[in-house]
Amino acid sequence: MNKHMFDLPERTVKPRTSGLTMVIDSFMGTRGTEDLIETASEWVDYVKFGWGTALVNPIVKKKIKMLRDHDIEVCLGGTFYEVAHVNGKLAEYEEFLNENDIKLMEISDGTIDLPRDTKLEHIAHFAKNFKVLSEYGSKDSQAEIKAPRIWAEHMREELDAGAWKAIAEGRESGTAGMYRQSSELRTGLVDEITETISTDDILWEAPKKQHQTWFIQKYGANVNLGNINPKDVIPLETLRLGLRSDTLLNFHGN
Amino acid sequence: MNKHMFDLPERTVKPRTSGLTMVIDSFMGTRGTEDLIETASEWVDYVKFGWGTALVNPIVKKKIKMLRDHDIEVCLGGTFYEVAHVNGKLAEYEEFLNENDIKLMEISDGTIDLPRDTKLEHIAHFAKNFKVLSEYGSKDSQAEIKAPRIWAEHMREELDAGAWKAIAEGRESGTAGMYRQSSELRTGLVDEITETISTDDILWEAPKKQHQTWFIQKYGANVNLGNINPKDVIPLETLRLGLRSDTLLNFHGN
Amino acid sequence: MNKHMFDLPERTVKPRTSGLTMVIDSFMGTRGTEDLIETASEWVDYVKFGWGTALVNPIVKKKIKMLRDHDIEVCLGGTFYEVAHVNGKLAEYEEFLNENDIKLMEISDGTIDLPRDTKLEHIAHFAKNFKVLSEYGSKDSQAEIKAPRIWAEHMREELDAGAWKAIAEGRESGTAGMYRQSSELRTGLVDEITETISTDDILWEAPKKQHQTWFIQKYGANVNLGNINPKDVIPLETLRLGLRSDTLLNFHGN
Repeated sequence: MNKHMFDLPERTVKPRTSGLTMVIDSFMGTRGTEDLIETASEWVDYVKFGWGTALVNPIVKKKIKMLRDHDIEVCLGGTFYEVAHVNGKLAEYEEFLNENDIKLMEISDGTIDLPRDTKLEHIAHFAKNFKVLSEYGSKDSQAEIKAPRIWAEHMREELDAGAWKAIAEGRESGTAGMYRQSSELRTGLVDEITETISTDDILWEAPKKQHQTWFIQKYGANVNLGNINPKDVIPLETLRLGLRSDTLLNFHGN
Repeated sequence: MNKHMFDLPERTVKPRTSGLTMVIDSFMGTRGTEDLIETASEWVDYVKFGWGTALVNPIVKKKIKMLRDHDIEVCLGGTFYEVAHVNGKLAEYEEFLNENDIKLMEISDGTIDLPRDTKLEHIAHFAKNFKVLSEYGSKDSQAEIKAPRIWAEHMREELDAGAWKAIAEGRESGTAGMYRQSSELRTGLVDEITETISTDDILWEAPKKQHQTWFIQKYGANVNLGNINPKDVIPLETLRLGLRSDTLLNFHGN
Repeated sequence: MNKHMFDLPERTVKPRTSGLTMVIDSFMGTRGTEDLIETASEWVDYVKFGWGTALVNPIVKKKIKMLRDHDIEVCLGGTFYEVAHVNGKLAEYEEFLNENDIKLMEISDGTIDLPRDTKLEHIAHFAKNFKVLSEYGSKDSQAEIKAPRIWAEHMREELDAGAWKAIAEGRESGTAGMYRQSSELRTGLVDEITETISTDDILWEAPKKQHQTWFIQKYGANVNLGNINPKDVIPLETLRLGLRSDTLLNFHGN
């Protein structure tokens, strides 16, 4: 018996434009990366080096090569862009992307104040040479969040400006952005966003199982999910396929 | 000095029938498995591939060989059985066990509705060729739980039907089955079960330190504990031996 | 671009006396240790084998050699000392340190009752041949804590008796000692301590990001922090450098 003997939900295959799994890596070494590749390269579309960790981890170049050799792209986190911007070093930032042959990057304003115009200009600028993921939502769990209609409209603007996908903020903790500090998902916000934008154009940061389950139950096996911990890639794949309690009855039996 | 110079609680040795430690693996690669074997093979009795992860992880056969070469048995999680059952694929499921030379399996009804008779028949059927672990309790943290007397009687029935051990459900999170959603242990339920069944015949799923501590304080160093995270095997062993704050005064001094 | 192109806070370098990062290891195998060394040896000053794990982990000697070859010292956790003391085996304990060429050790009374005089005598005794870290605070999250003035005075006494650094207890969970069970930091206690003792002489156990952030915002990039999980060393370094949302605006822009 292999998994194809069950009547499983059909999954997209690489190179995917929907059904994406984005892993967040903030610490991995060579051996951890090898384990991820060996067990999960079929499901990992890209690995994001979270926030500014790519500046601290001394084996970034090596990891990029290892991952790309197995058809896993890499991406720089949005906070890296924000640090570069407030330091007036965007040209050097772009050079860093090119030097390391990184083709995906995030543009966000989760921490700094960034005028809308500037964000949209930067998206348009980087979209000429990179796949841009524009992230929306605050990283401050105490911040007042923007009205759902504003979220949705701004995300659409950012897609129109050239972003490949719009990311809905969740941090690596699932306690900010579209989540309350208690981890509760703002479901009205999600509804408003999906009224305005195709779910295929959105990547939801969903580090917690309860959130992954909710999105899969609502939008199906091929919803785009991000900020997945390396050790949670296979568990997430079982949720997508109904091979775990939380989604079993959505996809099997009855 | 080595640990034998302290007056430590006596631990059972492999092959154990009590004092079992069952590890839950949902993601490990070759290098993580090697680290587990190198540091903890003396204490790990078997590794369970959690829920349906064995269908997704591409190196299952390799891991089985590595573990068995170090006297660690492997087991398939109960949800895998439940998926096979609702898909009408129990024959193929049995074939999968045989192909991979897996000798332990779980029969559970934590997610699906399974008539008592069917569960007992399946236990008896599989017990002819496998070591069966029958799991009791719901995986739904919101579900009303059965009365403690029913739990205890049903677990005894399942042992009578041929199960090697009866597992008390706790999930990998310690927030369902015999635990409330808040992680609080239903201690009255545990008392009722141990009035009816020998603790040696029960394996308690106890992924959290606070629960491991409770069971060790109540039933001693050689209580059977399951759903232990790979990184928690050595910490658990220190709890069993009184080498950690939480149980130090139970086993040393005074 | 590399990190030196940003205007980053200046970090101390090895061998450090301030700006220390102490990692707590309770489970690592060879490959995990190699990954830690490869990615973070620049920032890890020493690795503590938590509580009594050094008695259970069979590869302690190998890990000590690997770490020391990369200028990372090792330390035994305070609970190991406490177990030895209540068993009347301090001579054997000292032999264990010497046999394994371990130069750092903790003296604590987080679990056992230890007369003040005895603790100070033991600090003075071991300080002749070892770097002693004296730990203060209870590991019992329910315990009444001593008055802040007493904490501060006792920590100073222990430094005066010969301790290299005074450790403020936080456990590996951040829910005891100077933290409430809810993880809330007792900030009045911290203030009292730093009124009395130079922050360079204190190592704060701060396993959680929220606590690391608080200490860095209050005492700067080079505050001494301990009980850092191996996977959190690089994330901690980004907090120290303002490369993560939580401290970005403390160190960059504006």
